[in-house]
Amino acid sequence: MAQAEQITFYTHAISLYCQTVHIALEEAKAEYTLYYVDLKDKPAFFVNKVNPVGKVPALTYGGPKVSPEQPSPESAKLRESRVILEFLADVFPDSGLLPQDPVLRARARLFIAVFDAQVFDAFKAYFWMNEPVTKLLDALDALQKLLPATGFVAGEKCGIADIAVAPLLSTMVALLENDLGVYPVGDGRNTLEVLRGEKFARFSTYIDDLQAQPSFKAVWNKDAQVASGKSNTRFQRK
Amino acid sequence: MAQAEQITFYTHAISLYCQTVHIALEEAKAEYTLYYVDLKDKPAFFVNKVNPVGKVPALTYGGPKVSPEQPSPESAKLRESRVILEFLADVFPDSGLLPQDPVLRARARLFIAVFDAQVFDAFKAYFWMNEPVTKLLDALDALQKLLPATGFVAGEKCGIADIAVAPLLSTMVALLENDLGVYPVGDGRNTLEVLRGEKFARFSTYIDDLQAQPSFKAVWNKDAQVASGKSNTRFQRK
Repeated sequence: MAQAEQITFYTHAISLYCQTVHIALEEAKAEYTLYYVDLKDKPAFFVNKVNPVGKVPALTYGGPKVSPEQPSPESAKLRESRVILEFLADVFPDSGLLPQDPVLRARARLFIAVFDAQVFDAFKAYFWMNEPVTKLLDALDALQKLLPATGFVAGEKCGIADIAVAPLLSTMVALLENDLGVYPVGDGRNTLEVLRGEKFARFSTYIDDLQAQPSFKAVWNKDAQVASGKSNTRFQRK
Repeated sequence: MAQAEQITFYTHAISLYCQTVHIALEEAKAEYTLYYVDLKDKPAFFVNKVNPVGKVPALTYGGPKVSPEQPSPESAKLRESRVILEFLADVFPDSGLLPQDPVLRARARLFIAVFDAQVFDAFKAYFWMNEPVTKLLDALDALQKLLPATGFVAGEKCGIADIAVAPLLSTMVALLENDLGVYPVGDGRNTLEVLRGEKFARFSTYIDDLQAQPSFKAVWNKDAQVASGKSNTRFQRK
């Protein structure tokens, strides 16, 4: 289906929230212009004309085709990754980013709500603050309980619920593989064994399914995420 | 438009999140069965058959018409107020709960995202923890900046963005009128003066517009909210 309006996507390669929008654009087979924002030396046009709060991801939609550095006043400006995911599902109704059935759409949104309320805080508690892994495992189990027996959250098609969680969950596994975090030496690999064990069998399959998606492979780079973790002091043991 | 499926709505009168769903049901002119859950003595059927996490609001949709106390395994079970608001917008596409235009839908969702990320925490900080009012005023100003010059968040029609914020903002004003909160005596009325002043002129009009909606009047009860605040130890000065 032809895309009616131009899309310019402002992003940062390592940002997990940016990656979700990037994967959704790929999954929808959208035509878009990609612009990497230098977050350490944020360009004035970005804050003045794209996103007043200065954060990525951001997106312009519609208006004339222009250089990303000269956004048109005629385009709509969008921000907040969860809002943009819903927007892309609206703009590409045939993409399967969200199914048509209201009950399945609610299932997708509940999955994102539970993830946002529980997983990232639990991730930080374990990887950055050396709190027990229990909270993280409980959060992942709550997610796992919302998964249907096979496939993705809202059906056989990878949609916004799956895309919303794929970068963080995959990065989490990669960090555990490398024992990267402030937890005691070796604890990351122990946690990985739990996640690869019987209790998390459905969760493991789900992660594998996420990582097999071409849209995910096009965006997420394991080596880059691990390198970023290694250079981030929050993951470093004292 | 005829409603295809039965809706049973599980709620609690004083819960601000329950009230948002209730207002949306009214705004959509839905047919629904209302069931008040006794949160102090939660019925077993509710946790076992409606919402495994035991919270209101919750909703059953579809399946046979049954007593609320004997939910059918055939109905879909929904929880989380923001998820239910989107669900009602999907099930009642002609209600105007969300407009059709993807950009306006994104505007509604951004408003909810900013509210959820900033306002409730700032509310608690001021009313319960006696922190300076600055954070709350900043959050309300961030919301105000997202409002169009007139009308509601996404147009002339009251929609899910407006409904999502109306009970808490209205309760906040009622508490300030009664100087209810742990802040110093008289500070609530001072804050109310700021909110009724020039800087918050657009915000004031918006609150008045929200409170004039018949759906809001049908659900929100000022006296009950103030009485609940008075009996809630978190609002009481030491």
